[in-house]
Amino acid sequence: MRWTRFEHEGAAVYGIVEEDTVEAVEGTPFGEHRRTGVRHPLAGITWLPPVVPPTFYCVGLNYAEHVLMEAKLRGKEPVLPDKPDVGYRAPSALIGHQAPIVLPPDATERVEYEGELACVVGRTAKRLTRDDALACLLGFTIGNDVSERSWQARDRTLWRAKNTDTFKPMGPWIETSFDLDAALTRVRVNGRQAIEFRTTRMIFGVIDYLVEITRYITLQPGDILWMGTEGHADPIRAGDTVDVEITGIGTLSNPVIAAED
Amino acid sequence: MRWTRFEHEGAAVYGIVEEDTVEAVEGTPFGEHRRTGVRHPLAGITWLPPVVPPTFYCVGLNYAEHVLMEAKLRGKEPVLPDKPDVGYRAPSALIGHQAPIVLPPDATERVEYEGELACVVGRTAKRLTRDDALACLLGFTIGNDVSERSWQARDRTLWRAKNTDTFKPMGPWIETSFDLDAALTRVRVNGRQAIEFRTTRMIFGVIDYLVEITRYITLQPGDILWMGTEGHADPIRAGDTVDVEITGIGTLSNPVIAAED
Repeated sequence: MRWTRFEHEGAAVYGIVEEDTVEAVEGTPFGEHRRTGVRHPLAGITWLPPVVPPTFYCVGLNYAEHVLMEAKLRGKEPVLPDKPDVGYRAPSALIGHQAPIVLPPDATERVEYEGELACVVGRTAKRLTRDDALACLLGFTIGNDVSERSWQARDRTLWRAKNTDTFKPMGPWIETSFDLDAALTRVRVNGRQAIEFRTTRMIFGVIDYLVEITRYITLQPGDILWMGTEGHADPIRAGDTVDVEITGIGTLSNPVIAAED
Repeated sequence: MRWTRFEHEGAAVYGIVEEDTVEAVEGTPFGEHRRTGVRHPLAGITWLPPVVPPTFYCVGLNYAEHVLMEAKLRGKEPVLPDKPDVGYRAPSALIGHQAPIVLPPDATERVEYEGELACVVGRTAKRLTRDDALACLLGFTIGNDVSERSWQARDRTLWRAKNTDTFKPMGPWIETSFDLDAALTRVRVNGRQAIEFRTTRMIFGVIDYLVEITRYITLQPGDILWMGTEGHADPIRAGDTVDVEITGIGTLSNPVIAAED
């Protein structure tokens, strides 16, 4: 099943995607809900991030080649993480499928995509075991961890490098039936494939992170966990369109524009 | 005016504190609301964090002596921040006034308090100027940025050192009329004063952070910004009670207990 959220008459509405339509739902996937029978063609809707997370977890370094890239950026020796230490992003930066990534006036040319698997928590969870960890998830969606590399290299935190408004596209929907082991992540810029990697090629997997986080922290319905990216990305520029495809889920597509001032 | 949130018959309710009672309010301080005339004695209520923030900003290093402490912890040379780079905390870690700080079974003895001024955003804000920045705030409350120093020194991020469940007490209320220049922050452990500092003695002030953040990020109603702490703290242990007082706001008090595991 594919859950999404879209704008309808000024309000945010959950819906279930079937083929080329979305059926509006009263309520949320995290509690009581009822299908309304009212369907809209996907072609005409304004997509929203499929969930607004109470807390937004994001794994920074979780694929080997990306660790090398990040170390080079900071002028340091690469060190592979020896345990699953998660980080955070700002919910304020989330946008939906097809919404524009807006480049601030003072951003350098080093703004890059990062295609990522995003896990969506479906129920309250603490002290998960390896056996029951995945059962806390509602499903999976797709994230683009847009990053301004000069700020990432220079600032003391990732606050603006990764959390500037519009820098966190997510969607188009939450897929509840997904075979992680079979999945490929592909990023295309203006239709041309830029990178492809096996989504499973993580240093620590989804189960590792869920078990470790919930030793200390209670996950809540709607929390999201982005799983990191692989490789070295290319810059994106105003006028580009970035697609992140994860096979078995779908494709998150966002145009890039310059801020107006 | 003092806004708070408390639990009433299983639901979270906003209220306005006057002397030793709280009057329940329908709605929220961020939108339409109506006083109900129903008052409860403060002595009997279960306090909640006065707001659940969409995004939780927190300044890490913002007082000179604390910068020295943090550098020593990490075995590095102290470097004073040269610009206001903000960080993030997890809303999942927030608890209210009087709720217990729960020490996990594997925490070391190096769990410490950090008394902090907390700003509460009242309205949507982008590109604030120095002149209009403070007007975006609803008011100020008090935070205790509880930190497990061995994890802070060793982990790649602050995820469990500062975001373990119950490690972010906040409250007891949001004070809308507050003279920052006159304020003192005092921390007491079991009634004995542990540290006192002028709340204004920040490296970068509230206005600096609000202006810098909103160059890139839209603040939303209910967002919180914790302003960092001064000095070197002592460990807290199960059985202790930690009070953080900021003159002109009030006192946030929380007992410390061990997890039942």
